[in-house]
Amino acid sequence: MVKQNSEPLEWRINMPDGTSKVLVPDCMSHSRLLLQGFVMAFLNKFWGFLQRAWKIAVNEPNKLMHCLKVGLALSLVSLFYYMRPLYEGVGGNAMWAVMTVVVVSEYTVGATLSKSVNRAIGTFLAGALGVGVHWVATQSGEKLEPVILQAAVFLLAAAATFSRFIPSIKARFDYGAMIFILTFSLVSVSGYRVEKLFKMAHDRLSTIAIGTSICILISMLVCPVWAGTELHNLIKNNMEKLSDSLDGCVAEYFENDVKADNTKNEASNKILQAYKCTLNSKATEESLANFARWEPAHGGFNFGHPWQEYLKVGASVRSCAYCIEALNGSSIYSDAKVPDFLKKHFSKFCIRLSTSCSAVLKELSIAISTMTKSSKIDIMVEEMRNAVEELENALKSLSKQQIASTETKTGDSVNDIGEGNGSPAVVTLAEIVPLVTLTSLLIEIAARTEKTAEAVTTGRESRIQS
Amino acid sequence: MVKQNSEPLEWRINMPDGTSKVLVPDCMSHSRLLLQGFVMAFLNKFWGFLQRAWKIAVNEPNKLMHCLKVGLALSLVSLFYYMRPLYEGVGGNAMWAVMTVVVVSEYTVGATLSKSVNRAIGTFLAGALGVGVHWVATQSGEKLEPVILQAAVFLLAAAATFSRFIPSIKARFDYGAMIFILTFSLVSVSGYRVEKLFKMAHDRLSTIAIGTSICILISMLVCPVWAGTELHNLIKNNMEKLSDSLDGCVAEYFENDVKADNTKNEASNKILQAYKCTLNSKATEESLANFARWEPAHGGFNFGHPWQEYLKVGASVRSCAYCIEALNGSSIYSDAKVPDFLKKHFSKFCIRLSTSCSAVLKELSIAISTMTKSSKIDIMVEEMRNAVEELENALKSLSKQQIASTETKTGDSVNDIGEGNGSPAVVTLAEIVPLVTLTSLLIEIAARTEKTAEAVTTGRESRIQS
Repeated sequence: MVKQNSEPLEWRINMPDGTSKVLVPDCMSHSRLLLQGFVMAFLNKFWGFLQRAWKIAVNEPNKLMHCLKVGLALSLVSLFYYMRPLYEGVGGNAMWAVMTVVVVSEYTVGATLSKSVNRAIGTFLAGALGVGVHWVATQSGEKLEPVILQAAVFLLAAAATFSRFIPSIKARFDYGAMIFILTFSLVSVSGYRVEKLFKMAHDRLSTIAIGTSICILISMLVCPVWAGTELHNLIKNNMEKLSDSLDGCVAEYFENDVKADNTKNEASNKILQAYKCTLNSKATEESLANFARWEPAHGGFNFGHPWQEYLKVGASVRSCAYCIEALNGSSIYSDAKVPDFLKKHFSKFCIRLSTSCSAVLKELSIAISTMTKSSKIDIMVEEMRNAVEELENALKSLSKQQIASTETKTGDSVNDIGEGNGSPAVVTLAEIVPLVTLTSLLIEIAARTEKTAEAVTTGRESRIQS
Repeated sequence: MVKQNSEPLEWRINMPDGTSKVLVPDCMSHSRLLLQGFVMAFLNKFWGFLQRAWKIAVNEPNKLMHCLKVGLALSLVSLFYYMRPLYEGVGGNAMWAVMTVVVVSEYTVGATLSKSVNRAIGTFLAGALGVGVHWVATQSGEKLEPVILQAAVFLLAAAATFSRFIPSIKARFDYGAMIFILTFSLVSVSGYRVEKLFKMAHDRLSTIAIGTSICILISMLVCPVWAGTELHNLIKNNMEKLSDSLDGCVAEYFENDVKADNTKNEASNKILQAYKCTLNSKATEESLANFARWEPAHGGFNFGHPWQEYLKVGASVRSCAYCIEALNGSSIYSDAKVPDFLKKHFSKFCIRLSTSCSAVLKELSIAISTMTKSSKIDIMVEEMRNAVEELENALKSLSKQQIASTETKTGDSVNDIGEGNGSPAVVTLAEIVPLVTLTSLLIEIAARTEKTAEAVTTGRESRIQS
């Protein structure tokens, strides 16, 4: 049958509010509609942006607080301009104080301290060296002076830039090296013109001192966000999420058939995916640990708290997460069907192991959070080992059944399990591959969890020693 | 028997050069030796530092080149100071040009462009707004003026700081937001004093223009390092490393008994660990993709090259790497011993699968590198699928043997494999668990490799469309 085109060709435009309009071939209304569409699209996008911003503000009030702190610091430093006596004091160079505040204000106390120290040291070193080079240049006569200055700028800038590529320097003194280049260039270049070099150096240092001390005081006194505490909480939360994901992952595998698909709601999916934030947290952990080293004693943390140990714990938590990632979304969920009676039989061992694993992780996260040795952890690790052994035994007892090629299975003979060759339930190996994989990944996760427990213990001991 | 202490108590100190000295109880020499030890330790450390630096310089000449480029840019910009006519031209504000060069000089062209544009836009917006606010403040009388200025600084600084927490802004305009705060504070604060506000704004913009254009020209003309090319190579290299690691990992498992342990030299260990750099490359990939978007056409890349697709390819390469991580160093290497005849039997299937997987990865890395559709890739993926099927069949044929609890095995009956129940080789399930795990992780890796192949194809198509 041939379709009848009863309606003439027409253009429809779908508006963002859900309605749709027929476009009449009229240039004016066409362009007006286009414009309207653009405006609506822009407003929609802007609205989405505002919503995202609002979400951040509500979920992380500390970030909102940080913004107010930056505003406060800037207001304070700009007072130097408005109050005449203060202004005269720093000789019109108050600009440097404003600049320092803007650049040095960071979210965590450690980052602020690190940047402040870097800025001060970088400026001081470069200033001293700049004055020295300038003196040498002046002594060498008017012709040689710019040549020496240029060569010094070129060489020192190149060397300082290169130092920023060396990992140990980059981690701690990246900003300092930049400030060194900046100050040295400014001093040696402007020294050619400005006569009062020492005055300038002194002004810069004192304005930087004013700026950094305002920033440091505000960041430490007004709702301080400590990099150390952030690192501590990050590791703790990652452990908790991992523990939840592990539970959810194993439960999902065994409950797959029991529950209908539509009951897998968003919340449980979120728990299943929670471990993912652990996978890529290495860079964050390292930078937090770096900043934490600059911080004074705060909360339960002394100065010299072993922050590096957190990185080791974090790394071993991550190695657990890799295993869960291999497990999750892997073919074990979809492929070959494991016979129900086997699944039921193994579910209690697997769930027992995953439960004791996740209990160990939870206990470790509590131990980290309270910074005490958990009295239960040894018992729990022992329990986890037992669960591993039981699961291995269950696998061994499965061997007692005949795994045969004949397809005559008695699918519901749960009671036969482990009763030897008397009345064997017959399964093919291919059917149990997913189960075996799940089992050995679980055992691997248990091994890595044990390593995590060791790392936590080592960390606690090195805290006590320090 | 009681030990005889024939020698008196003495202190020995081991020197860094391998000798050891007996310390005589003399205060002078004691402290001298201590000092000597400190100096030696310091020199040793410094020497190690120099060696590391030298290694970077030799292995990555581009980084050395970058340092010279920064030196060159600074030398060029300082010419403004030395040449009187140019100096007069920018009205003594040449300092801003020096500052711009130092801050904007980044390793890749994209990063330099991104920072330059951010700096220019941030300065312009903040300058315009600052002048506007300043005008409003001036109109409101002398008493209200500082109040309005202070309030504006507080509010705008807080808002701009907050915007830096929003991921989409942070990725692209983080530096711009900081410059906005800086400039706005400077303009509205110093506006209270400096009369020639417009002149100052004009000077700042022109010095920034001078600084950024010097940096951009040098970074683009002298040995340019393109973020796009870096991203391209990073993804390509990660694929190659993954492919090598996969080969090495499987080979190690099956050759474990053949080779003695001491033949596992450093080189092969390095190959085995090569995949690890893929695990944590997400942040680098994202920042490179962000910078690459700013870059003009270069090499084989047009402006608007689909850099985001590289991130998808990178993510799927990483998901392969997670599986290898679960495989590598897992208990399959150490635990229960798989019977030799089974290992031999399976080795050909497993090695065939891992070889075809790694061949696909290598071919994909070549396809990425040449930006063409590989003519062989479809056949190779098909081959990989066949290898998966064969491995699965091998598992199924294993089921034909009787897996029994009796420990009377005929360990060397390799020829019996697959010949059905005629003369069965008997193994327990527990013995083959590691093998089954390896098998199903390999199958999972094959599945993820296929997804990587799809991502590469999609990426190529979206490049052609763009």
